Amino acid sequence: MTTCLIGLDWGSTYLRAYRFDARGQVLEKRALPYGIRHLPEGGYPAAFAQAVEGWPDAPVLACGMVGSRNGWREVPYLDTPTGVDRLARALTPMTTPDGRRLHLVPGLRDPVRPDVMRGEETQIVGVMAQTPDIARHGCLLLPGTHSKWVTLREGVVTGFATVMTGELFGLLTQHSLLGAQLPPAVDDTGAFRRGVDTARDSGAAGALSRVFSARTLMLDGSLPPTSVPDYLSGLLIGDELRMAIAAGWADAHTQVHMVGEGPLCDRYLRAAERFALTLRAAPDATTSHGLWCIAEAAGLTSTHATA
Amino acid sequence: MTTCLIGLDWGSTYLRAYRFDARGQVLEKRALPYGIRHLPEGGYPAAFAQAVEGWPDAPVLACGMVGSRNGWREVPYLDTPTGVDRLARALTPMTTPDGRRLHLVPGLRDPVRPDVMRGEETQIVGVMAQTPDIARHGCLLLPGTHSKWVTLREGVVTGFATVMTGELFGLLTQHSLLGAQLPPAVDDTGAFRRGVDTARDSGAAGALSRVFSARTLMLDGSLPPTSVPDYLSGLLIGDELRMAIAAGWADAHTQVHMVGEGPLCDRYLRAAERFALTLRAAPDATTSHGLWCIAEAAGLTSTHATA
Repeated sequence: MTTCLIGLDWGSTYLRAYRFDARGQVLEKRALPYGIRHLPEGGYPAAFAQAVEGWPDAPVLACGMVGSRNGWREVPYLDTPTGVDRLARALTPMTTPDGRRLHLVPGLRDPVRPDVMRGEETQIVGVMAQTPDIARHGCLLLPGTHSKWVTLREGVVTGFATVMTGELFGLLTQHSLLGAQLPPAVDDTGAFRRGVDTARDSGAAGALSRVFSARTLMLDGSLPPTSVPDYLSGLLIGDELRMAIAAGWADAHTQVHMVGEGPLCDRYLRAAERFALTLRAAPDATTSHGLWCIAEAAGLTSTHATA
Repeated sequence: MTTCLIGLDWGSTYLRAYRFDARGQVLEKRALPYGIRHLPEGGYPAAFAQAVEGWPDAPVLACGMVGSRNGWREVPYLDTPTGVDRLARALTPMTTPDGRRLHLVPGLRDPVRPDVMRGEETQIVGVMAQTPDIARHGCLLLPGTHSKWVTLREGVVTGFATVMTGELFGLLTQHSLLGAQLPPAVDDTGAFRRGVDTARDSGAAGALSRVFSARTLMLDGSLPPTSVPDYLSGLLIGDELRMAIAAGWADAHTQVHMVGEGPLCDRYLRAAERFALTLRAAPDATTSHGLWCIAEAAGLTSTHATA
């Protein structure tokens, strides 16, 4: 089969490689543990060589932290509002040591808040291509270590905001007094819901004004020590939803489409049920599709087809 | 001089001992590094023996984490509303291995939020005794790792709330992406004020919806990496003031009296200037005075005077 494009999703902790045919179908994919924080001996060139080893010569498009300040080459952010065409015109080309042509996708910057993302812009392009109605008028949620709330209008990212929910959860459970000396966590959906409701009911003060309750309730005996992590998870995810409504990123009249699946997304779905917020799962596996769309808009897929 | 009482302020990281005369004056004080997390060989009895070594036999009153679940003996919390008389009636007596009579002050529990404190209740008693007008109708702020906002009416603690501002600052600057790989901090009052204003202007969404700006502004070049800690300090202290107003712990019509002094309290004073909030410094060194007041209310100071 013809290889028309190689796509790389290169983040802090992972490197995923995709080989595409001329119709944008993924012929082969690889996952390597070489995020930019965990490079092998030989650094970027060695990781890159392994990712594309044995694959035909075709244009390579890469997104994610590989284009950050600590990446292979720093690619300036592109300011919102931005659609796929502006992204495609802003690729940074470079030649790798093994002679391949690599194009780096810029991250996005919302100059109003200000805020930044790298990698998610490509996921968003993939979602927009698959669901035109969301692209026309939508609110996307990409949950994770650094959750993103994205506003879409007429196929353009008009603005976005980052909430450090996942990272904060890690800090509180691993390093704070609240999480210290706890026995191993046990699933407790009731404790999760209790945390969500506490955040929702914290009003304009917000859940940080209530986070110490994780300790108080535990000392009280009304929250088992093994359930503190689920309570904190509910409190922080609930607070993210609370602040999304308070900040106007989401409202009761707009469906929020969540990108992803798995246990974390399930938590967001369960939390949303406690709010006047309609949260739907959007199609996943969108980064590879986004890479293809950006490459197509940049004219990379038509010129270099090789056997 | 007659020793009428020995007071111990025994927290997680420190142990302070006071020897009082019959009028409540401190004749001698000692500071030992034996917080309950850093006990010497021999544990509580050894730390206690060193703290009172060579002092005459007199009743000993101790407050703080020494009465917590991980303390020498767990003392149940006393529910608010509570004044000095109820505290004095709820002391837990014990006899130490060297035969001294030790009384432990209970911590307080606000059953409505719920919330807890240990040690601060004694500081508050000290403030109330020194400033009757604040005791009658006041709002106290005790800044720290776990800041406390306390409501006082007619000499009684009617309720309180904990905000983990100091601990969160430590987590974000030492363990998060925002604080990782930064050069040593440099004082930047402008960055602090910018953080305060960002929190103030975050409205009902709150400063957690803005905390990622610490990274964005740094990547932008508009916040020097050495100023990120001051920016985060402003953001978190500003958010504490924002939530105190949003939660109704403080309002524009009530003076807030802050217990303490030094660089941290200076930060709160500077932050309050950016809000419609009147923050005043209350007298410090109140824990020793509070110990005396509780002992007096409990009748401990009249019966055991020894030379």
